[in-house]
Amino acid sequence: MQKRRKLGRGVAVVGAGMSKFGMFKDKDSKDLFAEAFTEMLSSVDKGADPNDIDALYLGNFTNDFFMHQGHWGPIISDLIGLAPKPATRTEGACASSALAFREGVFAIASGFYDVVLVGGVEEMSKRTTEEVTEGLALATVPYEGKVGFTFPGVFGALATAYFERYGATREHLMNVTIKSHNNARLNSKAQFNLSIRDLMNSRIERAKKKGEPVPTWADEKDFLRDLRANPVIAWPMHLYDCCPISDGAACILLVAEEIAKNFTDNPLYVAGIGQGSGRGLHAAEDITYFEATRYAAQEAYGMSGLKPEDIQFSEVHDCFSMAEIVHLEDLGFFKPGEGYKAVEEGLTRLDGPKPINTSGGLKCKGHPVGATGASQLYEVWKQLRVEAGERQVPIKDLRVGAAHNLGGTGGTCTFTILERR
Amino acid sequence: MQKRRKLGRGVAVVGAGMSKFGMFKDKDSKDLFAEAFTEMLSSVDKGADPNDIDALYLGNFTNDFFMHQGHWGPIISDLIGLAPKPATRTEGACASSALAFREGVFAIASGFYDVVLVGGVEEMSKRTTEEVTEGLALATVPYEGKVGFTFPGVFGALATAYFERYGATREHLMNVTIKSHNNARLNSKAQFNLSIRDLMNSRIERAKKKGEPVPTWADEKDFLRDLRANPVIAWPMHLYDCCPISDGAACILLVAEEIAKNFTDNPLYVAGIGQGSGRGLHAAEDITYFEATRYAAQEAYGMSGLKPEDIQFSEVHDCFSMAEIVHLEDLGFFKPGEGYKAVEEGLTRLDGPKPINTSGGLKCKGHPVGATGASQLYEVWKQLRVEAGERQVPIKDLRVGAAHNLGGTGGTCTFTILERR
Repeated sequence: MQKRRKLGRGVAVVGAGMSKFGMFKDKDSKDLFAEAFTEMLSSVDKGADPNDIDALYLGNFTNDFFMHQGHWGPIISDLIGLAPKPATRTEGACASSALAFREGVFAIASGFYDVVLVGGVEEMSKRTTEEVTEGLALATVPYEGKVGFTFPGVFGALATAYFERYGATREHLMNVTIKSHNNARLNSKAQFNLSIRDLMNSRIERAKKKGEPVPTWADEKDFLRDLRANPVIAWPMHLYDCCPISDGAACILLVAEEIAKNFTDNPLYVAGIGQGSGRGLHAAEDITYFEATRYAAQEAYGMSGLKPEDIQFSEVHDCFSMAEIVHLEDLGFFKPGEGYKAVEEGLTRLDGPKPINTSGGLKCKGHPVGATGASQLYEVWKQLRVEAGERQVPIKDLRVGAAHNLGGTGGTCTFTILERR
Repeated sequence: MQKRRKLGRGVAVVGAGMSKFGMFKDKDSKDLFAEAFTEMLSSVDKGADPNDIDALYLGNFTNDFFMHQGHWGPIISDLIGLAPKPATRTEGACASSALAFREGVFAIASGFYDVVLVGGVEEMSKRTTEEVTEGLALATVPYEGKVGFTFPGVFGALATAYFERYGATREHLMNVTIKSHNNARLNSKAQFNLSIRDLMNSRIERAKKKGEPVPTWADEKDFLRDLRANPVIAWPMHLYDCCPISDGAACILLVAEEIAKNFTDNPLYVAGIGQGSGRGLHAAEDITYFEATRYAAQEAYGMSGLKPEDIQFSEVHDCFSMAEIVHLEDLGFFKPGEGYKAVEEGLTRLDGPKPINTSGGLKCKGHPVGATGASQLYEVWKQLRVEAGERQVPIKDLRVGAAHNLGGTGGTCTFTILERR
């Protein structure tokens, strides 16, 4: 049983920004962060002076080995005119900017700083798919990546074990993919902002135009079953079960609770923060869940006094469709072995009782790994402020949203709960 | 003028450990950290239960590109049996573990955690000198490393500018080298625990034994002037002005002030923490000082209410002999242009009024980059607790010591003040 943890001083979110996610050969990390930072500044209702920012925390995972440039804290600090104020890089693989968020919370809650910018950036598309797959495997523990176990394989193994135990099938994974694409279709910043049906229809149109044999897919699942449209990556993971290679940045402005109203009359508050670490699949007694996610969730629920049923919607780390299902269970939204049924029943749809990955998730919004954690909190910000446009969740009295971020094979997991009061 | 910053809750240091520093082809990062962690546990006077540790912060810079393994937080968390509790990696180039220390302080001061382990590790010697030089240059800003400006060159340029402005010469740099070696001679954990005189004499003995011409060096400076013994690396930096390539680890146990006495009757307290970021040499109006060090110092002095003259001894980031001199000035210990004179007058010697780098510094103790910041604080711990043995500073009523850590070309600078009460 975990101790119930508290912060000595409350922390509020008063602004958020995010670059478009995608593959941008002509943009570097500074361009991407500038895009997010500019939107963040304009999102602060009563305005924010960059000179008021006391410190920066920046999540990044791969820029040193992909771009041959490390030490990104001061580079971004210089970009936004923060120097000589401090800038710290956090790294927890694909959870790097959720760690930045958490350190920003601690820095303010400690009483030391009042206004802290947190965010993340990643620049991946200038490398080949093979290089990215190999590079990302640096986030696995030595018993995994070093012996050739890359991420699609890891989540393929997890899915196989989950299917065996709970009777789920590939058809259930397709439900996640179809839902994510439906949400991303409504998100202009998403890398793939189109539904599987859009995609299917465009393939049919293309075939017609080219005079090629016209596919006869009956519906989205039929399309996803077609190995020519959706080839195997690492069984049972197919192409449309996997998130893409992405470039992007996101950032969040945190302030001490007592000054939040200087920035906006509509701030969000940090209700719960949780983080856990994991030992890797080799050490797990059971690979159908992530111990570190459960620990992180328990910590965040404990701090907030909230329960899983109080979380009205959540971003959940869906690097692969299978990941979304197990995390729905690890976070307590559904019981073990029932996550896939919940998705099938539509409970996690945008108009369902527990909307998940309204942004489109990593799968469709994109997954510039070091930016993902901050971008999830950007989505929570947009939804809780009822500024999510077409993809706004239709829940009355929207007060509590959350984001779950995972790094490696569960090596680092975070869960963050934001609320309106 | 900086705002005076305070922590809402005091933080104490109750244990510290450090591996031997050196080049260990047969030890990996886990071996090194285990060595530091084991000493740390045994250093806690009333004992510490590893199960009491709430979280880990770990500094590391190069393991992903040197060792092709990233995401070191959870790997070390697994090693010490911390999982599923959280582990976060911080990266600020050669200041990575000073950042870990700072985040540990914030995590406790925020009220969230009570017992936090902070530390750093680096594994460098399995790479060639050329690979290490190139890899470390990832810590420079893009206007430096990307155009071929590696660290010896950067500090050579800084020395040239300093010499021109203040009239210092290479002879003054030699004073730093001789002093550092004299201190390291008394530190069994140092990579080079021998004085320049020891080194000189051993070369003479070796020549005699081999029947080679016997060198006729009159004294240490004569030895250092000899280009065969001390070749140029990047003028005016010679071999003995440069820190070595090292492997090593260090860690510190932090606890909330109110529970410190459960661990020891002789804790140290965190009196001041400061951090700054820099833009790189291309953006500096004057390259004879580091703006980020000055900022960090001001922040730490402000929090502590202490002045430079109150710091009884300090570890100072001497990746190159020249770096020690400019930092002595940036930290306010001596006026600009007077640091080299102070060293010449012996003021910074172990038995002087302001002992600097009693451990031997990066130059002689070694510089496993991600471990350096924590190892500096280990030295402050040993000195303030009067446990430094032969190298104990002979100051009565020893109460205040500090550590300064630098990453990149001043991209990240920290200054940390510890005190006994």
